[in-house]
Amino acid sequence: MNKETAYKTYLSEDEIPRAYYNVRADMEQKDAMLLHPGTLQPVTVADMEPIFCTELAKQELNTTDRYIPIPAEVLSFYRMYRPSPLVRAHFLEKLLGTPARIYYKYEGNNTSGSHKLNSAIAQGYYAKEQGLSMLTTETGAGQWGTAMAMACAYFDLKLKVYMVKVSYEQKPYRKTVMQTYGAEVFSSPSTTTEIGKQMLAQDPQTSGSLGNAISEAVEVAVGTEGARYVLGSVLNQVLLHQSVIGLEAKAAMEKIGEYPDVVIGCAGGGSNLGGLMAPFMEDKLAGRPSPYFIAVEPASCPSLTRGRYAYDFCDAGQVTPLAKMYTLGHGFVPAPNHAGGLRYHGMSPILSQLYNQGILDEARSVEQTEVFAAAIDFSRAEGTLPAPESAHAIKVAVDEALKCKETGEEKVILFGLTGNGYFDLMAYQQYLDGQMSDFIPTDDDLECGFATIPSLPGIQSF
Amino acid sequence: MNKETAYKTYLSEDEIPRAYYNVRADMEQKDAMLLHPGTLQPVTVADMEPIFCTELAKQELNTTDRYIPIPAEVLSFYRMYRPSPLVRAHFLEKLLGTPARIYYKYEGNNTSGSHKLNSAIAQGYYAKEQGLSMLTTETGAGQWGTAMAMACAYFDLKLKVYMVKVSYEQKPYRKTVMQTYGAEVFSSPSTTTEIGKQMLAQDPQTSGSLGNAISEAVEVAVGTEGARYVLGSVLNQVLLHQSVIGLEAKAAMEKIGEYPDVVIGCAGGGSNLGGLMAPFMEDKLAGRPSPYFIAVEPASCPSLTRGRYAYDFCDAGQVTPLAKMYTLGHGFVPAPNHAGGLRYHGMSPILSQLYNQGILDEARSVEQTEVFAAAIDFSRAEGTLPAPESAHAIKVAVDEALKCKETGEEKVILFGLTGNGYFDLMAYQQYLDGQMSDFIPTDDDLECGFATIPSLPGIQSF
Repeated sequence: MNKETAYKTYLSEDEIPRAYYNVRADMEQKDAMLLHPGTLQPVTVADMEPIFCTELAKQELNTTDRYIPIPAEVLSFYRMYRPSPLVRAHFLEKLLGTPARIYYKYEGNNTSGSHKLNSAIAQGYYAKEQGLSMLTTETGAGQWGTAMAMACAYFDLKLKVYMVKVSYEQKPYRKTVMQTYGAEVFSSPSTTTEIGKQMLAQDPQTSGSLGNAISEAVEVAVGTEGARYVLGSVLNQVLLHQSVIGLEAKAAMEKIGEYPDVVIGCAGGGSNLGGLMAPFMEDKLAGRPSPYFIAVEPASCPSLTRGRYAYDFCDAGQVTPLAKMYTLGHGFVPAPNHAGGLRYHGMSPILSQLYNQGILDEARSVEQTEVFAAAIDFSRAEGTLPAPESAHAIKVAVDEALKCKETGEEKVILFGLTGNGYFDLMAYQQYLDGQMSDFIPTDDDLECGFATIPSLPGIQSF
Repeated sequence: MNKETAYKTYLSEDEIPRAYYNVRADMEQKDAMLLHPGTLQPVTVADMEPIFCTELAKQELNTTDRYIPIPAEVLSFYRMYRPSPLVRAHFLEKLLGTPARIYYKYEGNNTSGSHKLNSAIAQGYYAKEQGLSMLTTETGAGQWGTAMAMACAYFDLKLKVYMVKVSYEQKPYRKTVMQTYGAEVFSSPSTTTEIGKQMLAQDPQTSGSLGNAISEAVEVAVGTEGARYVLGSVLNQVLLHQSVIGLEAKAAMEKIGEYPDVVIGCAGGGSNLGGLMAPFMEDKLAGRPSPYFIAVEPASCPSLTRGRYAYDFCDAGQVTPLAKMYTLGHGFVPAPNHAGGLRYHGMSPILSQLYNQGILDEARSVEQTEVFAAAIDFSRAEGTLPAPESAHAIKVAVDEALKCKETGEEKVILFGLTGNGYFDLMAYQQYLDGQMSDFIPTDDDLECGFATIPSLPGIQSF
């Protein structure tokens, strides 16, 4: 049976999920608790409140409620761009000559260009609810900053974005989009913070880093009345919000009588994969038939496939709590030729725990030139120009579909197409010009990163 | 009654129109025939065949068939990104406090970023059908070139795009997208054509023009075995293909029990407005109740509002047939500070005829700073960052909605949101930086353009 389904399956707006699904409630072994870096004690809501919105701090620590209602105002905003389409990759299947049925959940059809908006609008809402007037955040490539700018425009909140200097200079139009939505955007390190001034004094020519940008954003949030800091991945609250992706995908597949045999997602901090797989993971945790889960990461930043499962800082600047996760060390920096996103040194604590137990079945690393090759094949067959991050998942979906071609299996493959590639054309041009190379860190390279993982005696007791 | 409709209305894929609607079949007074520039006789299919695909030449001259079936392969491609959503602008209405119900048909949700793809894929199909191996075209800002690149990738046709030099240099990523889809892109004037070499010899520093780029593309098409030339607006065939926009919009509105009181579209060459309004115009031509039609153009390039209704060349290079249309003269060039698109000197002959008879009710010109102001309000309220071209329609839709606020009328306003603004961020930045100004040509400025309209004795007999 090669089932004929439509190209795109849309749920109706009434079918947008009414609650986020908190996969941690169903995990027998929870992800390890976040630790206060000073006391090495589990962080409390009170510890987090000076930095995060109170409700988000509660969500961060919530391991018991299976469903958390989506506020009406957030639902209303979702209706602007959700439900996102579940697309049957008819043309890609034809190109590959595979008996597999390939589906992707496309999150790029909104001006932020990615799934980041799903969490941004929730975080904006809780800030507004709490009566705050300003948020701060950092952004690397700019997707998260853009999403937060849209959310803050909607809730009439002030937003300060610290954008890593090299991106600020190389992607000026990302800055323009954020400014269009009313955000104030700073090149980080900046002269607006103490830590920024220190960094600039040490190295006036620095190209900046996400770690520094986080530190600047946190400093401003902590030092400003009515302000808090927000973050777009890794955190449990973010995976929670991103569960809308998986809930919609599952409902849409049910609608057309499908259920995936394989679920594939790219993984940087893990928010997209975590969100896409959550409701299918629910099946697995309940002992029901469930898909095979694959996390895809770049070979140049291989936290799951080659990292250590240990407590580490979430940022290079060491201002965040310690999280137990697969990590390359918070001092790890991907090779400069790495163009394909997913640059984060660690992995969501939830995904890390599930992977450590073998519940998240597999992590696979891929090299960037093969990722861009897959992206271009996909763009020509399916029309959509994917973000390089999303193309990691495409590459593995194609590999799995080609396996089906060999075996004749009619597997149902679902992957997350997290965003579009409009702001990644410099990387595409590099690839087209033959200027892109691969880089796999040596064991020695990795050891340098691992050396930055803090040594914390007695931590295993948590 | 303030009717509560969903934010987005999607037709199902089965409801994509099966045939294009040819409004000319219902026009009692047809648009004036195209003239051969040498003989001043009406052009025939045989005249056009060396340049255009035969089937497209037939469509260009077809004034009798009301419906022209959409080929199955084109329909299949449409299913990748159509039906496009009809969006109820709930948030914009709220911002304005208007009793009007505002809807927009959004054509920006595909990688080409605009409605241009609707015609590109049809033109690619007819070329493939005819056994051609190559197409040539020109592109200014790059939307049309991108759409043709996607179409040619799909049908495995070679594509050469002549991109106006100033855009080639200022929008390098548009070039990258076209190359990703396999197109060869030349900065025009180029050294690959005789006319290009001439232009470069005359002025090595020229920034190029659409007129020259058309001439280069036509030269290559005519001089290459198995090649033809394609064009993205103005032509009757293009309006025909773009009727899918209006057909879908009308069907979606029927589905929710709505019918527009006002239909608004931006108009450069006229393909978007022509396509959006066609099936509503059918009602008007049949004497049924119908909407009030408004064409919106930039004050700096006011072909309908201040142009002459006369025979003129479609291009600056004088290689095309003569068309009777509202024109500023093929030598007219908008002021250099004009950033908002819609730069064409003339207007679709079909729209020109309808406007001349007062069937297209009104043309209105707007200034670019008020257009960008409306674009930014819209982007913050409705999420989507619009193309500046589309924002012309937004501006007038907002004005109409504010009139309703004064009168209390609950009018239903439909406008075309033709594309997204991802590649127009340089213009947005200009606006945000306060560097954008308005420009209204003086009567003397216009006279210089009008002087380039050919004087053709006896032409009124057609």
